[in-house]
This record gives sequence, C-alpha cells and structure tokens, in this order.
Amino acid sequence: MTTTDAGFQRARRPEQKRQRQDDILAAARDLAVRDGVRNVTLTDIADRIGIHKSALLRYFETREQILLELTARSWREWARWLDDELDGAAPGDPGLVADVVARSFTGRPLLCDLIAHTPLNLERHVSVAAVRRYKLTSLGAIADAVEVIGRALPELTPGECREFISAMASLAGAMWQIANPPPALADLYAADPELAHACVDLLPRLRRTAEIMLAGLVPSRPPG
Amino acid sequence: MTTTDAGFQRARRPEQKRQRQDDILAAARDLAVRDGVRNVTLTDIADRIGIHKSALLRYFETREQILLELTARSWREWARWLDDELDGAAPGDPGLVADVVARSFTGRPLLCDLIAHTPLNLERHVSVAAVRRYKLTSLGAIADAVEVIGRALPELTPGECREFISAMASLAGAMWQIANPPPALADLYAADPELAHACVDLLPRLRRTAEIMLAGLVPSRPPG
Repeated sequence: MTTTDAGFQRARRPEQKRQRQDDILAAARDLAVRDGVRNVTLTDIADRIGIHKSALLRYFETREQILLELTARSWREWARWLDDELDGAAPGDPGLVADVVARSFTGRPLLCDLIAHTPLNLERHVSVAAVRRYKLTSLGAIADAVEVIGRALPELTPGECREFISAMASLAGAMWQIANPPPALADLYAADPELAHACVDLLPRLRRTAEIMLAGLVPSRPPG
Repeated sequence: MTTTDAGFQRARRPEQKRQRQDDILAAARDLAVRDGVRNVTLTDIADRIGIHKSALLRYFETREQILLELTARSWREWARWLDDELDGAAPGDPGLVADVVARSFTGRPLLCDLIAHTPLNLERHVSVAAVRRYKLTSLGAIADAVEVIGRALPELTPGECREFISAMASLAGAMWQIANPPPALADLYAADPELAHACVDLLPRLRRTAEIMLAGLVPSRPPG
C-alpha cells in the first residue's frame, strides 16, 4: 500500500502512529491558539502538516476528536501546574489559592476556549467511547485539583473543593468567551460608555470570584 | 409587488411588520425549546410559519439575529420575574435570594441554552448595530437584577450584587450545557460509576453556588 503524501507515509509501528498523532495535535493546537477553536478545520490541520485530509482520519474520528484530545491534554497540564504551584505553600492561605487558581486558567487561553466548546460541540461529534476516555481524563484532572486544594486549604471538605474548582472551571470557560469578543465588538465595547459592563477583565474577575467562593464555603456549610 | 407566499404577504404597515416579527420569534422559540438552540435553522423557522426562507430575511439579518432577539426578550422576562419573586420579601435572607436566583435560571431552559451560544455564535453572525441593541437590553436586565438583589440584601454594594449575578448567569449557561448532554451521553454517565461526577443536577448545584457566593461576598470584601 502506498500513499501520495511524500514524507508522511502511513505509520505502521505503534511509535510511528503515536508520532503522527502528536504531529496532528501540535498542528491543531497551533491553529487553535492562532485562530480560535471555532475556526480550526480538518483541511487547515492537514495543510499545516502537508498531508491530505483523508489521512488525518486514519488517526482521529473527526475534527472534534482531535480537539477533544487537545482538551484532555490541557486538563492534565493544568492539574500538574496547579500541583507544582501550590506544592509547599503554607496551608490556610485562601488569597494565594484564589490567585493561583485564577492564573491556572488565564495562563491557558486555549484550555479556556476549549472548555466552552466541549459540551456544546466537541462531545457531540465523536463516538461515545471517545467521550468516555475524555471524561475519565478531565474528571481525573479535577480530582487531582481537589486533592491539591484540599492540602492547601485543610478546613475544606473534598466536596467543597470540588464545588469550588468545578464552578471556577465553568466560569473560566464562559467568561473567557465574553472577554474575547471579535475585534469589531471589542472596539464597540471600548468606545461606548453605555457598554462598559460588556468588557470583562478576566484575571481580576476570576480571582475575585475565587476569593468570594473560598470565603463563603465554610460559613454557608449546610448543618449536620 | 406580489408575493408567492399566500397568507403571509409582505407587511407594509409597522404593526403588520411587528406581527410578522413576533410570528417568526414565536416559531424560533418553539423550535429552540423542542430541538435545542444549536439545531434551529432558518429553513425550519420558515417551514413552521409556511413562508420561504428569503421572506424571513426581510425581517431579520440572519438566523443568529432571530436567536439574539429571543435572548434579549428572555433576559427582560427573567429580570421581571426576579423582581416579582423578590418584591416584598423580607430583606436580609440570602437563602431565599439563592433559591430564587437559581430557579430564575432553571425555570428558563431556553435562556440557559441561549447564554452559552451568545458570545460563541450569536454575536458573531449579526451586525455590530444588532449586537449593540442586544447588549443594551441584556446589560439593562442585569442592572435591574442588581437593584432587586440590592433591595433584598441591603448589606451588599451594587458592585457586589453585579459580581454575584454576573457569575450566576455565566454559570447557569455553562452548567446547563453540561447538565443536558445528548441522550447517548446521558445514558453513559448514568450507567458508569466512574463517570458519576459527569452528571450535574442543575438546580441544587446553582442554588449551592449562590449560597456560597452570598456568604462570601462581605467577608472577602477588599479593605478600604
């Protein structure tokens, strides 16, 4: 069997196959960072690595599976970064945790962009098996973060840490989209005083919400 | 000038035009509630009221402008409902406010579905003038809610009420998408104990987050 894509022959051995997958994911990541997740197409990914679109589909089911795999990798990196940042921090400092959690998202614009697309688009155009693999990874990353935050703030229960980090992840995804409008709208919001509240400054906003939640978890704890 | 759409002749007087617009919006609303916002097409809207797609475009710029106008109307209804529910409530009851705010969203699945689509899709396929009109309406609804919550919880500043209600709106939009997966995924999450945390029960989740935020706003207030 031959391929017309010189330099990108079909991978036969497992390590070759992994290398191909990594190349595809690297190309998708570059395009998503540059153009936004919404604008990444299979054709653009294929063009970037110099192969035909149909060759991509030997390695991934759909465009959405490529992006879902990127999301899974981003969640793992995010959890490792949180662990590194809070490792050795003196326990009981909610201001530090709020700042680190807010920066864990604002430092990862691609993850933020992907979060909103995941239930809306990515999980809807892949097989159930692919969603299951993805969910196990993302839930695993959240579970790691729950442990890290529990070490940093020992007065919180694991359920409270999960409540906090799940809300922060959803908010980061939703607010990133609001904070990153297309250029014509960014200009409109900046120019029109009546639309001042349409502008969102993501880092201070997420940090403040994190501070509010961390201050409220214990006092609002249900009795019993 | 004639039209081939019997029974749906071009509206010439302003009140006829408004009636046409209302018919289009009602059809779009029915379809969005039944099939989800993602699945509403211009063709389906046109079919439902028995006209040709091109006739729709005399009244709205795009599919997205129809949905954006639905979103604006939903925000206005939401703000009025909040006002009605909290009107005459004894001030200083954060549990009541948390419950009412959570139900203001869970009782409006269409608004929740639209919230996530707004920055991601709807605001990107209409004119800047249409986005401006929409933003003035949605920001107006949020401003009304800030006032209502400020009356119910007089210890909060307007900025704190805005922080709270903006976060709740973003969360409601994001979590609604997670809580409403396609049927195949809902079955998967329900059947697989490892995926238990993928299931979100929207009302208790939003209510709890509202309680946490309302308990945390004052204690986390920045000094000065």
